[in-house]
Amino acid sequence: MKHTEKCLYQVISRPEHELGRLIGVWYCDTRAMLEDRVSSIREVNIYEPHVYRHVIGPTEVLDFREGAYSAQTSYIVVRTMHDGEMLLFSAGRYVDEIVIDGGAARFRKRVVVSDSSRYDTLVAIPI
Amino acid sequence: MKHTEKCLYQVISRPEHELGRLIGVWYCDTRAMLEDRVSSIREVNIYEPHVYRHVIGPTEVLDFREGAYSAQTSYIVVRTMHDGEMLLFSAGRYVDEIVIDGGAARFRKRVVVSDSSRYDTLVAIPI
Amino acid sequence: MKHTEKCLYQVISRPEHELGRLIGVWYCDTRAMLEDRVSSIREVNIYEPHVYRHVIGPTEVLDFREGAYSAQTSYIVVRTMHDGEMLLFSAGRYVDEIVIDGGAARFRKRVVVSDSSRYDTLVAIPI
Repeated sequence: MKHTEKCLYQVISRPEHELGRLIGVWYCDTRAMLEDRVSSIREVNIYEPHVYRHVIGPTEVLDFREGAYSAQTSYIVVRTMHDGEMLLFSAGRYVDEIVIDGGAARFRKRVVVSDSSRYDTLVAIPI
Repeated sequence: MKHTEKCLYQVISRPEHELGRLIGVWYCDTRAMLEDRVSSIREVNIYEPHVYRHVIGPTEVLDFREGAYSAQTSYIVVRTMHDGEMLLFSAGRYVDEIVIDGGAARFRKRVVVSDSSRYDTLVAIPI
Repeated sequence: MKHTEKCLYQVISRPEHELGRLIGVWYCDTRAMLEDRVSSIREVNIYEPHVYRHVIGPTEVLDFREGAYSAQTSYIVVRTMHDGEMLLFSAGRYVDEIVIDGGAARFRKRVVVSDSSRYDTLVAIPI
C-alpha cells in the first residue's frame, strides 16, 4: 500500500458538517498524512496519561454503491484522568465509506461528526 | 398501514415499571398518536438546538412466541448543548416486541424503562 | 457443574494490569468464590437502591487457541441514584476467554480492566 494512497479521515463539528464545509479540525486525505498524525499523538501521549474509552453502538449500513458501503455509527468517548476523574469527552457519529479489499473490510473514508463544536475536544486526539 | 393500527410506545421509570404500572410519561398506543408526538417534537426542536446521542449495547433476544420476538437493549443518551456542554441525559433499557412483517423486522411494542424517575428527563423527548 | 470448577473473574485497574499484577480488587478463581460474591451483593443491594447501567460496544475477537477465543469489549457504566442523579461510574474494557461448551459460549475468564484506579469504584460492585 503506497503512502500517497488517497483516503479521508476528518473530524468536524455537527454545525459545520450541516453547512457542507469540507475542512474540519482534522483533515487527512492521504495515508502519509494519517501516519504522520498517529506518530505525533503517540509522542504526546507519553506526557498525557489520560485514557479515552470509545463505546460505539451498532453500525447502520445505509447504502451500497460502486463497490463501497455507506455506514453510520454513534459513539461516546469517556476520558479518565490519572486521578480517576471521568468526563464525557465527545459524543457524535461516524459517517463511513467501507470497501472490501482482498476479503477484508477497510475504511476508505471516515468522517467524525462531533455533536459538540468545542474545539478543545476536537483538536486533542483522533476520535 | 392504517393510522389506527395498534402499537405501543411507552416511556416509564424503573420504579413504576417494577410496580406494574401501565401508564408512564409517554404512552402512545396507536400509530396516529405516535405520528402526532413526532410532529410536535420536530416543531419544538427548531427552538432547542440540543443534540441527543443514543448509544445502545447489543440486543438480547429473550423469547420467541406467537410470531413475536421479545428483546432487551441497554441504552445511554448524552445531551450536547449548543455551547458544547455535555451531560448524561438518560440511561435505561428498551423492552421490545418485534415482529417480522413482509421480510422486515418491525417494532410492535417499545417500552423505554428509564433508570431515573426524574420527570424532566422523561417528558422532554422520546428516548 | 462443580463448585470447585476453575474460572477467573477479576477487576483490576489499567495501571496495575499493565504492570502485570495478578491480583486486583476482585479476584475470584473458582465458581464457589464467584457465587459467594454474587450472593453478598444481592444482600447489599437491598440497602443501596442505585442502578448500574452497562453499555458495551461490539466484541473484538482477537485469537482462537486451544479451544478458547480471546476477546475484548469496551464498556461504560452509568450509575443512577434514587433521586435521579446520574454519573459516569466506570469505563474500561473486558478481556475475556470464551469456550464453547455443549453448543453454548461460556466465559472461562473475564478480566475487567478499569481505566480508573479509584478503589471506591472498583470495590463496590462487579463490573
